[in-house]
Amino acid sequence: MQLKRIIEENDTIAGKVFDLTIQFLIIVSLISFSVETIPGLSETTTQFLKLIEVATVSVFTLEYLCRVYVADNKLRFIFSFFGIIDLLAILPFYIARGIDLRSIRIVRLFRLFRMFKMFRYSRAIQRLKQAFLTIKEELILFLIAAGFLLYISSVGIYYFENNAQPEQFKSIFHCLWWAIVTLTTVGYGDMYPITTGGKIFTSIVAVIGIGVVAVPTGLVASALTKVIKNEEN
Amino acid sequence: MQLKRIIEENDTIAGKVFDLTIQFLIIVSLISFSVETIPGLSETTTQFLKLIEVATVSVFTLEYLCRVYVADNKLRFIFSFFGIIDLLAILPFYIARGIDLRSIRIVRLFRLFRMFKMFRYSRAIQRLKQAFLTIKEELILFLIAAGFLLYISSVGIYYFENNAQPEQFKSIFHCLWWAIVTLTTVGYGDMYPITTGGKIFTSIVAVIGIGVVAVPTGLVASALTKVIKNEEN
Amino acid sequence: MQLKRIIEENDTIAGKVFDLTIQFLIIVSLISFSVETIPGLSETTTQFLKLIEVATVSVFTLEYLCRVYVADNKLRFIFSFFGIIDLLAILPFYIARGIDLRSIRIVRLFRLFRMFKMFRYSRAIQRLKQAFLTIKEELILFLIAAGFLLYISSVGIYYFENNAQPEQFKSIFHCLWWAIVTLTTVGYGDMYPITTGGKIFTSIVAVIGIGVVAVPTGLVASALTKVIKNEEN
Amino acid sequence: MQLKRIIEENDTIAGKVFDLTIQFLIIVSLISFSVETIPGLSETTTQFLKLIEVATVSVFTLEYLCRVYVADNKLRFIFSFFGIIDLLAILPFYIARGIDLRSIRIVRLFRLFRMFKMFRYSRAIQRLKQAFLTIKEELILFLIAAGFLLYISSVGIYYFENNAQPEQFKSIFHCLWWAIVTLTTVGYGDMYPITTGGKIFTSIVAVIGIGVVAVPTGLVASALTKVIKNEEN
Repeated sequence: MQLKRIIEENDTIAGKVFDLTIQFLIIVSLISFSVETIPGLSETTTQFLKLIEVATVSVFTLEYLCRVYVADNKLRFIFSFFGIIDLLAILPFYIARGIDLRSIRIVRLFRLFRMFKMFRYSRAIQRLKQAFLTIKEELILFLIAAGFLLYISSVGIYYFENNAQPEQFKSIFHCLWWAIVTLTTVGYGDMYPITTGGKIFTSIVAVIGIGVVAVPTGLVASALTKVIKNEEN
Repeated sequence: MQLKRIIEENDTIAGKVFDLTIQFLIIVSLISFSVETIPGLSETTTQFLKLIEVATVSVFTLEYLCRVYVADNKLRFIFSFFGIIDLLAILPFYIARGIDLRSIRIVRLFRLFRMFKMFRYSRAIQRLKQAFLTIKEELILFLIAAGFLLYISSVGIYYFENNAQPEQFKSIFHCLWWAIVTLTTVGYGDMYPITTGGKIFTSIVAVIGIGVVAVPTGLVASALTKVIKNEEN
Repeated sequence: MQLKRIIEENDTIAGKVFDLTIQFLIIVSLISFSVETIPGLSETTTQFLKLIEVATVSVFTLEYLCRVYVADNKLRFIFSFFGIIDLLAILPFYIARGIDLRSIRIVRLFRLFRMFKMFRYSRAIQRLKQAFLTIKEELILFLIAAGFLLYISSVGIYYFENNAQPEQFKSIFHCLWWAIVTLTTVGYGDMYPITTGGKIFTSIVAVIGIGVVAVPTGLVASALTKVIKNEEN
Repeated sequence: MQLKRIIEENDTIAGKVFDLTIQFLIIVSLISFSVETIPGLSETTTQFLKLIEVATVSVFTLEYLCRVYVADNKLRFIFSFFGIIDLLAILPFYIARGIDLRSIRIVRLFRLFRMFKMFRYSRAIQRLKQAFLTIKEELILFLIAAGFLLYISSVGIYYFENNAQPEQFKSIFHCLWWAIVTLTTVGYGDMYPITTGGKIFTSIVAVIGIGVVAVPTGLVASALTKVIKNEEN
């Protein structure tokens, strides 16, 4: 079967054209989805975006039906990871027709699943996956340690700053937000300590926070070194 | 003794259930502690939180008594690191009964010690510990170097900015806060130089600051690579 | 030919003097270009800067003509990468004479190409180039993954914050700006989530963002280790 | 000579006590220097700080004279790196007596040189020095590349933002400050792009900026791995 080879394989010119076309349409669809959110669009632009929407969804529907058609085991494809994603990527378009317009907004988020389809085309993703599997245990350990640090930081800053800035450092949950913004070194500046105790505490936490960033970087660095070395042998 | 094995070991189903239950209750207790700090909670929620408090502390007390009971050397357990933590985790609950309500707040901070109990269950923590022991000397050296840089930065910015912003860059101690926020690249934006000299000085300090973050990252990376390599052999 | 050796090679004293003079004039020209942008310069300064401009461009023109003269294949040099850069570095000066003064501003940006000439003198740049070629595939993979994360973050924050801050989180494109500022941990503080949902979402994104910074760092670290090791053998 | 051994060596108990005392006094002197900058100190505190000043400088003077006395080649010690630092650490105290009070402020900055004396005691500093010598060339290359990126970023943002925010992005030199704050990911929030072009440009620059931080981190990581490996063999 020629069609099967074009759709499922990547080794013919037709197959490559097919793959690239689908990838291009996924990106077009994502951009059009983003443009739609800009407030105050003209009537012509809205009409044009709707046209793109109809066009891309039509192609994606055709692609989905073809994939089901050429699959050796049709049911297995439908309930496979990519089968479900392919369906979720087109479903909101059809469902949203009948019901009210407000709900479309949330349902459309599913359109993002289209993006994940791109992963099918990337062989290189396997290498990254392998690197992360090598350090899975260490990363979990790091996440637990980071969680501990975040929690202790939140409780600490709560006791130091709650009296001085009750509106900002309202509860431990509000302090958790501060702890994440500080320890990831994002530092928006919406919340920061003003008491001397809070500043000293933050200083200690921020220095430890460098270590928190250092550990996963070190983990990824050593894992990638290992994966690259293994590929050479 | 069956009970001893359940409490102290991890190799039976009952032992695993016991461990997971205690871990789950520690997390429940920490969440309930955090929820309590939210201002303006309803009477029902407060009652419910008090109930959780009584329940978890009861279980922790029972656990503590059991641990003392099954210990071969009872006194040694009581004065061991985890023995003291187990006691500190439940003590505030009983002490806070008799005395006035304001003091509870500070005493309750000890409840956080419950969190450290989780470390007992983690075997993986040993690996991280080993990595940090490998680079202990280098980390101390880095901390001293970082301390030098922080101090020099503070003194420098004090001379550049004190005249222009006397309220912000009040003393070298206030500048130390600025130095930490800048060198860890958190950058809240509560203090920043406005004079040309201060900006040039900060630029030099910030570029060196990249190195300050680079050194511990490099240390952790090489230590982890070493630990992983040693485990393979 | 003596002149050819001085201009194209680096192994005589005259050749080294020639190279260092050109490098020095490039830097002088760049500084003078920067000083010109300071508003409210005195007439004397402006005159002095114009003098520097005439002087440097004269030398660069002479250099360009010499390079064309000594080249074995004149046409090949003119259309080579550095031949075009050498021409672009002097062209705006002559073109801007005839036309109106406003347009000079944009055309002058080409002067920056002078800076790239410095690369010709740096042999060490080859080593860095080699390190980046080693990890080219991984870097592309990372950039795609980073692009995915940026897009998903933007869409997510748009749904969480658009209702609460319609002016700040106006469209997915405005959110993309927020995503870049947050994931690179720059954190200007011009846009940040205020809803609970948005804060929780940002927390997850920021923690993943540490990984985003960790991957290229790890890649560069392993590539540089490899290049250094290869040079030793 | 016993005195020579105590002062210059570290292998006797008296020698260790001497070294630790000097180190302790350096820290006391630095703290007292910092406390002095706090505005609104009471008369008693000022008097107490002056006492500490006199005491520490006396000891440092005595130490300096002893070091000159025990040195085999007195002139060589006086003009050595540490000889000059030792002198600079005490000189301002004596000079500041005669002249007016305002100038003391700047002269006192030399007191910071006392801090560098600590390096004499640290043997471990040699190891870090070795690691940095290994990657000296690469670090210089990185600094040049970083300089290029900073300059291009400044020029770019100047053209994008100068019209929209002439007060903030006044000249290329003002933009250089923005470029450093952004590329080091400090992100104070005192200057940020508001135009669409400026935001797109900043996004590209910020993503490249991750690489800028990644390169020295990778360099330090590989250099430290090498130094640690060499010490093991």
